[in-house]
Amino acid sequence: MLSRSEVKYIQSLCQKKQRQQEGLFIAEGPKIAEELLQSDFIIKKIYALPEWIASNPANDNSIIEIDEIDLSRISTLQTPHQVLVVAAQKNDVYKPVLKNKLSIVLDCIQDPGNMGTIIRIADWFGIENIICSEDTVELYNPKVIQSTMGSFVRTKVFYVDLNTFLTTVDVPVFGAILNGKNIYEMQKPKEGLLLFGNEGKGIRKEIMQFVTNPITIPKKGGAESLNAAVAAGIILSHLI
Amino acid sequence: MLSRSEVKYIQSLCQKKQRQQEGLFIAEGPKIAEELLQSDFIIKKIYALPEWIASNPANDNSIIEIDEIDLSRISTLQTPHQVLVVAAQKNDVYKPVLKNKLSIVLDCIQDPGNMGTIIRIADWFGIENIICSEDTVELYNPKVIQSTMGSFVRTKVFYVDLNTFLTTVDVPVFGAILNGKNIYEMQKPKEGLLLFGNEGKGIRKEIMQFVTNPITIPKKGGAESLNAAVAAGIILSHLI
Repeated sequence: MLSRSEVKYIQSLCQKKQRQQEGLFIAEGPKIAEELLQSDFIIKKIYALPEWIASNPANDNSIIEIDEIDLSRISTLQTPHQVLVVAAQKNDVYKPVLKNKLSIVLDCIQDPGNMGTIIRIADWFGIENIICSEDTVELYNPKVIQSTMGSFVRTKVFYVDLNTFLTTVDVPVFGAILNGKNIYEMQKPKEGLLLFGNEGKGIRKEIMQFVTNPITIPKKGGAESLNAAVAAGIILSHLI
Repeated sequence: MLSRSEVKYIQSLCQKKQRQQEGLFIAEGPKIAEELLQSDFIIKKIYALPEWIASNPANDNSIIEIDEIDLSRISTLQTPHQVLVVAAQKNDVYKPVLKNKLSIVLDCIQDPGNMGTIIRIADWFGIENIICSEDTVELYNPKVIQSTMGSFVRTKVFYVDLNTFLTTVDVPVFGAILNGKNIYEMQKPKEGLLLFGNEGKGIRKEIMQFVTNPITIPKKGGAESLNAAVAAGIILSHLI
């Protein structure tokens, strides 16, 4: 049985402040655990049920066998799922390369599910870099990590002052808005940034000045808008 | 102040059984309330803060003014948002018309957020009919209603025995799977069903036999799959 202090420590990693202080994050479930173990992330601890350990025999002594009761004490999921991994955050300090490829820029995406889904979409379409405003939801938020379905191990997520960052950019900036150019009539760009704004408010005014190519998914029905992640998926599928 | 029994009654509408017994559902927030009030749904009660009532003066005496404390007692949202509407469920008993248009078919979509987002996508692209297997999450689940952002007032959602339903269909059935025909190389169909399967398991084997045209979003990166709603959005955007 896990000690009370160990349970408390793992639970504390649900808080951003604590995560950043410790430089750690948690990820759950066999699929994401497998992705993490095959990646270059540094694994600190693996808390797992006997059945997970039995089907993952090659793992080292960072594994702690626990039972369902302990797992439910440390899990962030409604239905805990075999394994919880504690891993070290990465600090990518280099600059993303933007030439000759498409990258994603997020201006204040707030919903962890949307953020994780956008990372999963980027990974599906082979996009390497996701550059986020500082007020975009944090990559290591457990809900973001879970909704990436493991795709975060293959994408690079940067948090920057978007104003400063966009001043230095020398590729086209495609901004998703409600009255831009029809994406179905566009040529596929060979390089550029695909900029998506906040779920409710869209792209901030001071960021709009950097948009060289406003783009739109034309609508046929009555909905006022699309979910941010769905819009990102549709735009990527047409421009890639 | 709302009586304890009234609060309990509204809270009970979060349960599917109770919702079906009463034939009611709840919807929250000014945006969805506005959509509902302009639709042909029958409104039973509106519980609203004074500021919502002040900006919606034309409404009748089904409005009950409440304060923030009462709203937080009856709300299903983490951040209650001005107004909660209790409305009557619709029972569309007629059959959907499938000729000369595209319709969506869902085989066991489980996540309320995905379901709501798919309804919002259908509404964006002007799709009228969504036909669901009986084990697909219920339309009137509060999380589904909220994630439609009001689009449920313009789409028709049917729950059927998919096996029986698909036996009677005389339009092409496009099934989204991992190794079908590349959607970027397809001609836009003038009619048919777009079939999406469960988030984890895809389309069930017994349902696959009805698929006349298996289709796929080709991938370039490492992700194993796309979120169900994102996949639906991408496929619709290419076929409409």
